[in-house]
Amino acid sequence: MRGSQALIGALVESGVQVCFANPGTSEMHFVAALDTVPQMRGVLGLFEGVCTGAADGYGRMAGKPACTLLHLGPGLANGLANLHNARRAGSPVVNVVGDHATFHKRYDAPLESDIESLARPMSTWYRSTRSPSEVASDASAAVAAALGPPFGVATLVLPADVSWSEVPESTGQMFRPEAIGPSAGRLVGAEAVEQIAKILSSGERTALLLGGRAFRAGALRSASRVSVATGAKLLGETFPGRMERGAGLPAVERLAYLGEFAALQLDGISHLVLVDAKSPVTAFAYPGRPSDLVPESCAVHTGAAGGDAVAGALDALAEALGAGSGPYLPAPESRPEVAPGPLTPASAAAVVGALLPEGAIVSDEGITAGLYFSGATEGAPPHDWLCPSGNAIGQGLPVATGAAVACPDRPVIAVQADGSAMYTIQALWTQAREGLDVTTVILDNRSYAILNFELKRVGAEEGGKVAATLLDLSDPDLDFVGLARSMGVPAVRAESSEDLAEAFGRAVSEPGPHLIQAVLEKGGGF
Amino acid sequence: MRGSQALIGALVESGVQVCFANPGTSEMHFVAALDTVPQMRGVLGLFEGVCTGAADGYGRMAGKPACTLLHLGPGLANGLANLHNARRAGSPVVNVVGDHATFHKRYDAPLESDIESLARPMSTWYRSTRSPSEVASDASAAVAAALGPPFGVATLVLPADVSWSEVPESTGQMFRPEAIGPSAGRLVGAEAVEQIAKILSSGERTALLLGGRAFRAGALRSASRVSVATGAKLLGETFPGRMERGAGLPAVERLAYLGEFAALQLDGISHLVLVDAKSPVTAFAYPGRPSDLVPESCAVHTGAAGGDAVAGALDALAEALGAGSGPYLPAPESRPEVAPGPLTPASAAAVVGALLPEGAIVSDEGITAGLYFSGATEGAPPHDWLCPSGNAIGQGLPVATGAAVACPDRPVIAVQADGSAMYTIQALWTQAREGLDVTTVILDNRSYAILNFELKRVGAEEGGKVAATLLDLSDPDLDFVGLARSMGVPAVRAESSEDLAEAFGRAVSEPGPHLIQAVLEKGGGF
Repeated sequence: MRGSQALIGALVESGVQVCFANPGTSEMHFVAALDTVPQMRGVLGLFEGVCTGAADGYGRMAGKPACTLLHLGPGLANGLANLHNARRAGSPVVNVVGDHATFHKRYDAPLESDIESLARPMSTWYRSTRSPSEVASDASAAVAAALGPPFGVATLVLPADVSWSEVPESTGQMFRPEAIGPSAGRLVGAEAVEQIAKILSSGERTALLLGGRAFRAGALRSASRVSVATGAKLLGETFPGRMERGAGLPAVERLAYLGEFAALQLDGISHLVLVDAKSPVTAFAYPGRPSDLVPESCAVHTGAAGGDAVAGALDALAEALGAGSGPYLPAPESRPEVAPGPLTPASAAAVVGALLPEGAIVSDEGITAGLYFSGATEGAPPHDWLCPSGNAIGQGLPVATGAAVACPDRPVIAVQADGSAMYTIQALWTQAREGLDVTTVILDNRSYAILNFELKRVGAEEGGKVAATLLDLSDPDLDFVGLARSMGVPAVRAESSEDLAEAFGRAVSEPGPHLIQAVLEKGGGF
Repeated sequence: MRGSQALIGALVESGVQVCFANPGTSEMHFVAALDTVPQMRGVLGLFEGVCTGAADGYGRMAGKPACTLLHLGPGLANGLANLHNARRAGSPVVNVVGDHATFHKRYDAPLESDIESLARPMSTWYRSTRSPSEVASDASAAVAAALGPPFGVATLVLPADVSWSEVPESTGQMFRPEAIGPSAGRLVGAEAVEQIAKILSSGERTALLLGGRAFRAGALRSASRVSVATGAKLLGETFPGRMERGAGLPAVERLAYLGEFAALQLDGISHLVLVDAKSPVTAFAYPGRPSDLVPESCAVHTGAAGGDAVAGALDALAEALGAGSGPYLPAPESRPEVAPGPLTPASAAAVVGALLPEGAIVSDEGITAGLYFSGATEGAPPHDWLCPSGNAIGQGLPVATGAAVACPDRPVIAVQADGSAMYTIQALWTQAREGLDVTTVILDNRSYAILNFELKRVGAEEGGKVAATLLDLSDPDLDFVGLARSMGVPAVRAESSEDLAEAFGRAVSEPGPHLIQAVLEKGGGF
């Protein structure tokens, strides 16, 4: 047995079933070994950012890692932005990077680079496996590291000679696959729970700030019970990795992206209790404005941290408040009305809200033109919503791709801004090849609209002609219908609500990928 | 004056005229400042790899750096693969990366990451500018570092608050722009030249291995004179950043990509003299084969190193051998014949060889299907040839884009494999927007053909179905004509030599970008 086979075998025994791959010469033994371990599915991406983003989407939905297969430092580099997003989303990923043979590295061959320096910033765990006898246990350790708690991005570097060499026979007995599946996390102690209960019962104005695993159905119901029992405001992080939501589930008011609005949401709160969330800060700095969003007179408490048993902590908190089986506030069933007429960000959102299928998974990278979609779907049948947690654009289509691989029986919807779609547009080809049930709605405003907006907010001089050109996506206009069809994805253009409703209804009722270019007013956002 | 304006002003004063940008919020002041410094041209790329690859292509042709503008760690990450190529090509690039405001970094906002760790592997110089009073001198130092000698990738990080803050008035006098333009490099001493001359006159079998600046016309003539005078074999690195070549210029036999063939080229050589070249090694390691290509009995000598005055050293060497005005071996004028019939890698190369316009710049990322193009153009009118020096695929279209910006009066030809085209296909949009005279020939064999080949060479088991799928680009086929048109580039499909000849002839005679999808046999390479 070669190192490559031992690696894949160990990954499979540790529960990894999918490899999102864009291999090169140094990964050829890994590729060949895939045929000897049929439990591992290989999915080709035409660009590494597609592979890492797909692994992120898979991890968010499957609750266990897929692996990637990337080619040396430059291949890893191409995948880093979406590993950044995975890390911020708290998504489990085993990131396999092929390296030159150990004896080859000293020659500084053309593709040689410092893989560790590149990988560390986006990895929660890093190891370069040094021998065929260690590759299985290293693979297993990588899966364990990805599963946490908390979930993370585990980068495992595989030198070509470790991959092609025979594993010593004695090694087999040394390998013990790690326990599969994420643990619920560290238990939050009764004393800590009591302390939070006391704060929430103090009569002062309090809020829970939910993030990460607090956005799962059970945790949401417990949090809502706490809120009902104590009057604590229920707030959420701006861009959680995965939210369960829709009719029947408690709705959570997420903090606005704009610090000015977030400050209003937090205004007057005396105690902010973090539940798998970070203390709120603005995404960017602005001249003369605070980065820290916590009001001066507000104390911040940790109810549950990233690696904690979040659902359990919220259960215990509800129990401690005597609300363990008390009422919670489910979002009422409701669908927006579709008014005929030209497409706007609001009317496009209404169409999707009206027609969102039950059990849908929404990959949301709609940015400015997508702001209405969350509200328009709050009362739709239960679904999952995946946000761009790391704010690095280019994750929307890959995450949708990976989510569809993880959940082949659920419809996936990508609410996708035009500018950010172009970063990883190659994902459409993988959707076509794998026949994935993804409906992409391109919000086509022919503009980096958010930057036109930010240009003013950062206090820059009124942008002139050059600045306007750099934030403009027309001249020439992008034909997303043509791009999609060229990669095998059926696509249509929609210029009115009726167009979009018809196209969206058809797309979600047919299997396989579809794309709809929803043509909005130029520069149109919220 | 704000830091952003001081930065751009200093870059312009140091000779930088083009900024290949994909900005975000933290770069908005830089973007706004572009309108106040009209000498700097802003060129938008829809993906950062397009920007860095374009800066590489610009640097290779202009002999001075363009700058990039990238957004934080993830934006930098997206551009790293082509910075890797630029570094390996010895291309001057000033890589400007926006960062969060200095006071914002400690909040670990969603886009925060370790920029330095990401940048260092692909940068020859790195600095994060700390205050508005230092930004001009830092910019100037970055240009100086990019200009070398030797040329390099200088990464300058610009925190948002340094960009938006006012520069203290006293600073103006502190700023002295660096001398513009690359120096010829360090002089190689007469003694060292004499020593090499002695080796070459020893009667033993010798060879010159040319790289980098040794591939420029003057240096090539001197090297050829040395070769004629001494019988030294004239060899070249496999993938130089820029070669001047064609009828009338000495032709250089480049080392083959395949180590087996390179070994034959070096067989029997007793003394190998490196001229701005590295001692030859294989690109990858293979089981049981050496990485080092230098024969055991061969001594390696350095005739001129990267930072040396290469042309001067070769001149001096020719003089020392009494061949300073001796004969050299120019490549004869010759054009291949175009035989009608189905397209093959060889017939496609013949068409381009037959029709290559004088003064063309060829960006060569043809990989396996492109192997014949170099030979087919050796006797074409003088032109420049740009290779993928760093072996990271996805540089072909961006490098062509940047070369066209640097040399608006010269036709640019991209000889482009299909698989690698997909990494940075967004470059076509920038070509359309800027009206660049680039003719892209997609060598469409619907396969990562080189990997099918490498799969066998690395000694992997005969690939099975899964392996075959991961190296195959059909199912669905990519429609490059549709992709190009969707981004505003006129495009046609060619299935025969006649088709290609007609389309290529038309494309190079019309201004602006064109794409030709040259349909080859599936999997067809050399």
